[in-house]
Amino acid sequence: MNHLVIMAGGLGSRFWPMSTPDNPKQFIDVLGVGRSLMQLTYDRFKGICDPENVWIVTSADYVAKVHEQLPEVPVGNILSEPCRRNTAPCIAYVSYRIKAKDPKGNIVVTPSDHVVVNIQEFQRVINGAMQFAGETDAIVTLGMKPTRPETGYGYIQADLAAQSMRNKEIYQVESFREKPDLATAEEYVKHNYYYWNAGIFIWNVSTIVNAFRMYQPALNRIFESMMDVYGTDQEQAAINEHYGECENISVDYAILEKAEEIFVFPADFGWSDLGTWGSLQTLSKKDANNNSLISDNIKTFETTNCIINVEGNKQVVVQGLDGYIVAQRDGRLLICKLSEEQRIKEFSAE
Amino acid sequence: MNHLVIMAGGLGSRFWPMSTPDNPKQFIDVLGVGRSLMQLTYDRFKGICDPENVWIVTSADYVAKVHEQLPEVPVGNILSEPCRRNTAPCIAYVSYRIKAKDPKGNIVVTPSDHVVVNIQEFQRVINGAMQFAGETDAIVTLGMKPTRPETGYGYIQADLAAQSMRNKEIYQVESFREKPDLATAEEYVKHNYYYWNAGIFIWNVSTIVNAFRMYQPALNRIFESMMDVYGTDQEQAAINEHYGECENISVDYAILEKAEEIFVFPADFGWSDLGTWGSLQTLSKKDANNNSLISDNIKTFETTNCIINVEGNKQVVVQGLDGYIVAQRDGRLLICKLSEEQRIKEFSAE
Repeated sequence: MNHLVIMAGGLGSRFWPMSTPDNPKQFIDVLGVGRSLMQLTYDRFKGICDPENVWIVTSADYVAKVHEQLPEVPVGNILSEPCRRNTAPCIAYVSYRIKAKDPKGNIVVTPSDHVVVNIQEFQRVINGAMQFAGETDAIVTLGMKPTRPETGYGYIQADLAAQSMRNKEIYQVESFREKPDLATAEEYVKHNYYYWNAGIFIWNVSTIVNAFRMYQPALNRIFESMMDVYGTDQEQAAINEHYGECENISVDYAILEKAEEIFVFPADFGWSDLGTWGSLQTLSKKDANNNSLISDNIKTFETTNCIINVEGNKQVVVQGLDGYIVAQRDGRLLICKLSEEQRIKEFSAE
Repeated sequence: MNHLVIMAGGLGSRFWPMSTPDNPKQFIDVLGVGRSLMQLTYDRFKGICDPENVWIVTSADYVAKVHEQLPEVPVGNILSEPCRRNTAPCIAYVSYRIKAKDPKGNIVVTPSDHVVVNIQEFQRVINGAMQFAGETDAIVTLGMKPTRPETGYGYIQADLAAQSMRNKEIYQVESFREKPDLATAEEYVKHNYYYWNAGIFIWNVSTIVNAFRMYQPALNRIFESMMDVYGTDQEQAAINEHYGECENISVDYAILEKAEEIFVFPADFGWSDLGTWGSLQTLSKKDANNNSLISDNIKTFETTNCIINVEGNKQVVVQGLDGYIVAQRDGRLLICKLSEEQRIKEFSAE
């Protein structure tokens, strides 16, 4: 069976005050479409995976919010992390948990706060990758065709000579590259074998559990030791006791960069990690003055190239701004130049 | 006895969204001192007038708010206007109402939403004017020494040769001048006998009632016909029935510009009508970058010459603005250049 893992524990601090630790980005209707980013993530896997095989891994603080937003998903499938330990422990936990239920299952892992524009193409790619991972012991990543020399993403270098025979759209990975500097990124986009790492992974249960066993024996020990409590009343207590022992490490470092059978499925379905206000502006509808106005009750005068994102439907008037972010949520307010958005963490520190 | 009349029916539309028809300027702690402008107005007459002789004339919609903010004032002293009819009907109503209680009383009439900095000097001036008006049949206005060629105020031209013998600080009025154009205002401030009309009037009950009788016979007829219901259960019903018949006219046109015995008491106690955001900025505390920050939880970066007025104590971050108004209340938000504040009514039209 196909299982979907949605990682929904992020804090979304770059989108303050729209996103706050109380209500981070993945739970917000960032695009103004009536569904939160996590709900949109769930929606785009419809038909690929049944609700009882959808798993959400999140912070203990957000379990209620996840349940509220995804009532279709069984409460027992919402896995609660007692502390933050990056993506490797998160993926290890849910992988062993799924193994306890369905040791022959296939898994797709996705962040909860990204955006995909072309759902049909997305589903075609995911289905292809799921089938491939189900028939092999491959770890499959999705590679997004870069449209600009982005320095905020990691890159995947494909070996175009090593095409899979089972699925001719899938290639072996030559190497993973960390977030590059601008010159390097400019070099990457000149070639047709560098792709953005979208953080979406496809594998079967045995493959990922074996990878943890081989490359992360400490993590394997922790989660394998709990095999007999998964799905029982003791699961949460055991997790609460042992999760803190996990190393704080990303799955990229822990597994992907070490494993042998790593593949990339280059794809182009209009993807964004919505990591910056600028990327949000790119994806939003814009008015004639290139303003992204998220709310129906915003009036602008002599205002251009702004993102105005305010909660509810209260009256907002903006006059005389060019290239600013205006964000309001729960009484908190941010006004800053789009060009300074990297400083938002600094700005919002209490 | 001394009576204080506070006119508190204004809409404060120039201060949107800090001030809205639901909660206009006079009821707001505009200066961030813990008291609304109306409460500050009441406070600065302490010692001049007892609470049972304080009268508030306001819109029916605001009666509860007035009572909540000034619980010391008897509820029966809050006079409710069923519709808006400018200052002459408002003053006529309260004057006849006071006459029914205390026909020999003295009255000072004041707007509810102005600011006075030097309370001690203010009280000295008011006491002098009250005594003068009590002993004569004079209508006394206060004239503010102009500090700039303001085009937003009416001016009072004093006849410096016609000094009163009873109070040598008081002069006869030569003429009232409407809001001038800039060239005229610049001419006015060159002379020492033009003063801003602060809208504060002092007279005794007989004087003002006689003035209505003489100059506004229609208004006189309406309010004199109700003499036997003032202070009774029938007062509000009678007012509701007849108030709408009143002409919509200011006391300046209706009485001041027509009457004979008009005096001006030139004074200098740090007055502002707070008619503009700019005047609010002038009066507020400012940080090292000339920003007026009304709230303790505002952080600014590269921001100068701004007024930032937000409700509550929620976190606000402003980066990269120079010379802007940022105002937030009840979810409504205004961002506009200070130089464009005349357009706020246009901006805020729903």
